Amino acid sequence: MSRFFSEELSALTPYTPGEQPDKSKQLIKLNTNENPYGPGPMVKKALEETDSDLLRLYPDPEALELREAIADFYGLGPEQVAVTNGSDETLAFAFMAFSANRRKVFFPEISYGFYPVFAQVFKTDFEEVPLRGGLTIDPEDYLKCDGPVLIANPNAPTGLALEPSEIERILNADPYRLVIIDEAYVDFGAESCVPLIEKYDNLLVIQTFSKSRGLAGSRVGFALGCEDLINDINTIKFSFNPYSLDQVAISVAAASMRDKEHFEQTRSMIMATREKTFKTLKEMNFHVIPSKANFLFARHDLISGADYFAALRENDIIVRHFDKERIEDYVRISIGTDEQMKQFLKVTGEIIRELE
Amino acid sequence: MSRFFSEELSALTPYTPGEQPDKSKQLIKLNTNENPYGPGPMVKKALEETDSDLLRLYPDPEALELREAIADFYGLGPEQVAVTNGSDETLAFAFMAFSANRRKVFFPEISYGFYPVFAQVFKTDFEEVPLRGGLTIDPEDYLKCDGPVLIANPNAPTGLALEPSEIERILNADPYRLVIIDEAYVDFGAESCVPLIEKYDNLLVIQTFSKSRGLAGSRVGFALGCEDLINDINTIKFSFNPYSLDQVAISVAAASMRDKEHFEQTRSMIMATREKTFKTLKEMNFHVIPSKANFLFARHDLISGADYFAALRENDIIVRHFDKERIEDYVRISIGTDEQMKQFLKVTGEIIRELE
Repeated sequence: MSRFFSEELSALTPYTPGEQPDKSKQLIKLNTNENPYGPGPMVKKALEETDSDLLRLYPDPEALELREAIADFYGLGPEQVAVTNGSDETLAFAFMAFSANRRKVFFPEISYGFYPVFAQVFKTDFEEVPLRGGLTIDPEDYLKCDGPVLIANPNAPTGLALEPSEIERILNADPYRLVIIDEAYVDFGAESCVPLIEKYDNLLVIQTFSKSRGLAGSRVGFALGCEDLINDINTIKFSFNPYSLDQVAISVAAASMRDKEHFEQTRSMIMATREKTFKTLKEMNFHVIPSKANFLFARHDLISGADYFAALRENDIIVRHFDKERIEDYVRISIGTDEQMKQFLKVTGEIIRELE
Repeated sequence: MSRFFSEELSALTPYTPGEQPDKSKQLIKLNTNENPYGPGPMVKKALEETDSDLLRLYPDPEALELREAIADFYGLGPEQVAVTNGSDETLAFAFMAFSANRRKVFFPEISYGFYPVFAQVFKTDFEEVPLRGGLTIDPEDYLKCDGPVLIANPNAPTGLALEPSEIERILNADPYRLVIIDEAYVDFGAESCVPLIEKYDNLLVIQTFSKSRGLAGSRVGFALGCEDLINDINTIKFSFNPYSLDQVAISVAAASMRDKEHFEQTRSMIMATREKTFKTLKEMNFHVIPSKANFLFARHDLISGADYFAALRENDIIVRHFDKERIEDYVRISIGTDEQMKQFLKVTGEIIRELE
């Protein structure tokens, strides 16, 4: 730290992203919930058609092409869509826009590890609401929170999802409280809250192209909500980094949103692979949380989370382990291809058999 | 504004980017200081070689390939380079990292219009230091500032540059004060402060790929400084948006940095066109500031800045006009190709002749 660094932020602990190993190494990478199938033919075409000469021009700061593609997909207007550089940027802008007014932000004790980091970097008070038994979120615990509520649905790293009717209870409990639903993983079997946007002006839904759309490398996220909330996000965006989406990212993300066939096909494949993997892990006596995301959260009585993580790593398989109370016994396993999961299950079987 | 928006930010006025007209319209676009030549053959090749399948993976959050390419160009180590989503994001992170500690930030009264917006969005006190006669910056005025100093060099929208020795005076005056030099336009004839980095640990230099590198559409900026300052920028980056550079942007920016021939050739062409345009405008009795940037700042006694802007716009030429005291009589004209400037000068000649 230099002698010039903000004293107020001196205790800040940045987020630790999952390892991004050298691509030349032949590892089975199940640690950052990437999509094993990647983007489809329409994205490939959009990328091929990008003219490098046009990169000399600033992109459209309104990114209208992309906002219209998203709006069309969800049956909304483009004025109900804000686009950003990954959903991390959407979340950061939401913290800047809505976390002030001397009110705490409330989110689950175990959830996306970036939430408390945002709260710290934007100097916001926050309260981590404990999970119930089985690592579940109980909507009851959020009804009386007197500040913005932020819930990942499905939650990470558990994969457990609330029903929209349960989130509606939180929305209804206080129309003067904003509810932000982070739907990064919603396309893998949970039900989206997007249809509630027309009814609730205190609802902001955040999504990403990094998971179900297979475009983690392009850094595109978006927020959906009533026009006023979207304007607020854009007020921050245009006071921070108006052109944060580059021209190639705009084009490929718009193409991805239009390629419904590829989207439906690949998310179905991932859900099917997840169910098969779930079943096999259960047969090996793992405790596995029933997941609506593209990952499984699992533990085994015979091995600690850290040891299981290390044993897999020795066999060129990377998963994610969180050194945090209540979940330290678990590892989070991203769902890859059938072939990758077969190899993962084979290695896992060997690890467990040695302990029995 | 929604009822949830931060009360502290309710008076925030976002930055207004220059117009990005529909690309299908055949306009001569001299309003946002884009590079008329765009990126070179090495960028074209890097873009063509991008495999859309790899977009499924998160980019390297360290962007090491790009940081090494930049470090090689400037004879620095990668630990002295931070890369961000455009230099606007570098500036935003610098405000977050260094503008606290209850000290004001100082920058010139007339400069990049985003500086006061950053100060507002990050709730930082700031002082705009008046320019001297001829819209010049006098280093003397910054020697006693008791907070971070931020100077665009060359300054925008004037194009006037300080010598590194003048900036060294500010650096030397107080080693406990950070000096940030925004060198967005430095490659068009001014002298860079990068060589001073080894000597001064209170110097942060910010540059961009949007101007001399012809990659405005890719959104890449960077900071150069001692390792501690770079670590501070990265502490903010990893607490805000660790992956803000996408995979394609990393690849094309690294290729652009390696393509020295294209860089040298195109910046020479732009400077030559600028000098010819400067001379012709002077012959038409314009007051033109001698510029070290890829734009000219000019006014004419016979026409207001707003009217001249409008008359050019009617002839399908867009320049930039700032409705701000002391500079409202001027327009800022980005340097395009020889052909574009010929048409601009022809139309300008007609506008002026009608008034004589």
